[in-house]
Amino acid sequence: MSLSSRHLLGLNGVPKEDIQLILDTATTFREVLERPIKKVPTLQGKTIVNLFYEDSTRTRISFELAQKRLSADTINFSTSTSSVKKGETFKDTVRNIEAMKVDMIVVRHKSAGVPQYLTRISKANIINAGDGLHEHPTQGLLDMYSIKERLGKLEGLKVCIVGDIAHSRVALSNIFGLKSMGAIVSVCGPATMIPLGIESLGVKIFTNIDEAIAKNDVLNVLRIQLERNAGTRIPSLREYHKYFGITSDRIEKFNKEIVILHPGPINRGVELSSEVADGPYQVILDQVTNGVAVRMAVLYLLGTMH
Amino acid sequence: MSLSSRHLLGLNGVPKEDIQLILDTATTFREVLERPIKKVPTLQGKTIVNLFYEDSTRTRISFELAQKRLSADTINFSTSTSSVKKGETFKDTVRNIEAMKVDMIVVRHKSAGVPQYLTRISKANIINAGDGLHEHPTQGLLDMYSIKERLGKLEGLKVCIVGDIAHSRVALSNIFGLKSMGAIVSVCGPATMIPLGIESLGVKIFTNIDEAIAKNDVLNVLRIQLERNAGTRIPSLREYHKYFGITSDRIEKFNKEIVILHPGPINRGVELSSEVADGPYQVILDQVTNGVAVRMAVLYLLGTMH
Amino acid sequence: MSLSSRHLLGLNGVPKEDIQLILDTATTFREVLERPIKKVPTLQGKTIVNLFYEDSTRTRISFELAQKRLSADTINFSTSTSSVKKGETFKDTVRNIEAMKVDMIVVRHKSAGVPQYLTRISKANIINAGDGLHEHPTQGLLDMYSIKERLGKLEGLKVCIVGDIAHSRVALSNIFGLKSMGAIVSVCGPATMIPLGIESLGVKIFTNIDEAIAKNDVLNVLRIQLERNAGTRIPSLREYHKYFGITSDRIEKFNKEIVILHPGPINRGVELSSEVADGPYQVILDQVTNGVAVRMAVLYLLGTMH
Repeated sequence: MSLSSRHLLGLNGVPKEDIQLILDTATTFREVLERPIKKVPTLQGKTIVNLFYEDSTRTRISFELAQKRLSADTINFSTSTSSVKKGETFKDTVRNIEAMKVDMIVVRHKSAGVPQYLTRISKANIINAGDGLHEHPTQGLLDMYSIKERLGKLEGLKVCIVGDIAHSRVALSNIFGLKSMGAIVSVCGPATMIPLGIESLGVKIFTNIDEAIAKNDVLNVLRIQLERNAGTRIPSLREYHKYFGITSDRIEKFNKEIVILHPGPINRGVELSSEVADGPYQVILDQVTNGVAVRMAVLYLLGTMH
Repeated sequence: MSLSSRHLLGLNGVPKEDIQLILDTATTFREVLERPIKKVPTLQGKTIVNLFYEDSTRTRISFELAQKRLSADTINFSTSTSSVKKGETFKDTVRNIEAMKVDMIVVRHKSAGVPQYLTRISKANIINAGDGLHEHPTQGLLDMYSIKERLGKLEGLKVCIVGDIAHSRVALSNIFGLKSMGAIVSVCGPATMIPLGIESLGVKIFTNIDEAIAKNDVLNVLRIQLERNAGTRIPSLREYHKYFGITSDRIEKFNKEIVILHPGPINRGVELSSEVADGPYQVILDQVTNGVAVRMAVLYLLGTMH
Repeated sequence: MSLSSRHLLGLNGVPKEDIQLILDTATTFREVLERPIKKVPTLQGKTIVNLFYEDSTRTRISFELAQKRLSADTINFSTSTSSVKKGETFKDTVRNIEAMKVDMIVVRHKSAGVPQYLTRISKANIINAGDGLHEHPTQGLLDMYSIKERLGKLEGLKVCIVGDIAHSRVALSNIFGLKSMGAIVSVCGPATMIPLGIESLGVKIFTNIDEAIAKNDVLNVLRIQLERNAGTRIPSLREYHKYFGITSDRIEKFNKEIVILHPGPINRGVELSSEVADGPYQVILDQVTNGVAVRMAVLYLLGTMH
């Protein structure tokens, strides 16, 4: 069994079989992570470049750990220490890196479409680690893995994505992936944060968080990205919390099981109360662990294709 | 034989047997460092995160080399490239890192007590690489190793720590460790640099450096940390050197053997004259080499505990 | 066969046999780079420090990849994260690093002569990765490798170095290396960029780029280093391009084969038109690939000497 594409650029259009294969493979690596020796020799002698044009600690470390646990050699390239300053074009930088015979490139960039562009100028396998407001497919995959781990399935589950949908690549990757796997996806957030026409992707819109809680099995609660001017789209963090923050009171009102995801870092007291962030419904740290397993699966499947 | 604790937070309260075991194990690794192949497979498949919230080249490189020579996988996390900027709490950052299934965390932080706190929120082995003005236990251990290497023992030796005792975690770790091993410890420095009540730790105070040289077998000369405002506690560097700087003249006056340590980086012409810094009494570069061996020993002993 | 020196400080005075041995060894590693597993265990257990006092993405990554593909352990030390800030002397920094038992040091520094100086204070093998305006020997070697790869030989070839000769360590390493190998070397550039007395190195001067193209087999076109004030030596980039820029028109006028090298990063539209930078005459990306192979050869030959 192998994936139908040499790259992972997004979850839009990825066949259900591919997603299933990645999630199944991740299960194997998830077990490896519980062993005393968390390392397999699968990608020994392969070189992977982490090309991060946006800062990201957790995603970069998660990928780097996944790479090292597959025994690959890892090179970190970040704009702060790069020849970008010397006025080299992005294309020349990438072609240079590729000329050093790298096997895979993990790329994060503020512009949507950069990973797609890389597939045209490089022979390496390209993995999108977040491109602008477009997609962040390994986040979508680890979210699906974490939901399935908790609830045993994805098909037929009702999943609501809460927050700034309009400015979230995590939201888009979740919508595409979850719908492929047969989940019923909705979004919930202030009107300023819901993109016009989102219904065309086949998602329902909730404007009331209580209704969203009542009618869904899973909430995937996005981070309010203050570093990306989210503050200009809401009156205040306090008001956001009042109307859309997930609290124990809100959940317990409905006397039901619910699963709460968050991609982190959490703004405690904004998207989630601290009680919820540390409570029985959330799977936030499982997401982090599963993220390493899912990335190992993606790197393994792409790195061993013929 | 194994250590009595899963962590190395400081040398205060560490049993003599533990210190002895670390120093003995370091002797083995010290020999490994003289081999053409300085690497052993002991920690293969283990992941160690270096969590440095304060800049430190030499301690970080020393730990990283120790880790690589034990075949561990190493992740460097520093505040300058981290999600700290995104407003995540320290606790959430650490729990995230831990969720990626790391085995050990080496932490340096400006606040005393952070390593202790980590033991409560993480299942990893915690190694303190310097916390505020509290402790820097691997420095204390490498100092002891270097003294023992030169003089054959620690018990009964007279060791004087010279300089800004009040603002030194190196001083505290030395005092605790050396006293456990049966050395007779004293301090020497300007009154503004000697903490009130230090005698309660069982150390004698010298206010005159000549007397300190005359009556001790070892001087552990601390760095004047100008980057931590040491200048506000002394009239001038020149005056400090005049009254407390170690020079050949001062040493030779007493016509005796003495061993001089310095944790580096040296301010030449302040704590030590260049002649002394490069002279026959000092073991400064031995300390650096021994530091790698001592850190290998600590990582090995903690990383292979059951 | 082994090299006649334990260090690679420059190509000035390096015997032809040494250069030949490095180029031949690089051919072997160049083949390794085409394998699925690009890694050999040759330097396992060796520690190499990359001591970069000047920013450099591509040279640092090229060395780091070469080191990892030889299975060495790599430590990156850059001034931005170093104890240089704490006022430590360069000598003390190096002696400290060496005391950690490193086997090789790759050094880049803004001052000419620093690598030479390192050989006196360290027992490690020293490799110059660029020192001020002096030399950049691995660049010279990869340029020679790339010329030989394309044209089958170096002896008797006419090679012209184009651009800011006076401020280029690449130019000097090329001149020394190419002349040793029997090439006929010339330079071409504006008068402000040609050092007085360069003829004493046995190179001819062209002041007209068309004549240089007409009379040479190879052009090694240097980067206009705006970050080093090259702008003060030419009226404008546009004028530089007009008089010395390599364009398809200029090349095709002479209806001949020519090989064009450039060390990168390219200023498109300045030294080279984009058409030339991507065209059939240039070997720019081959240089990058060959750079890894040549550096593997140098590290291997020095690291396995007795």
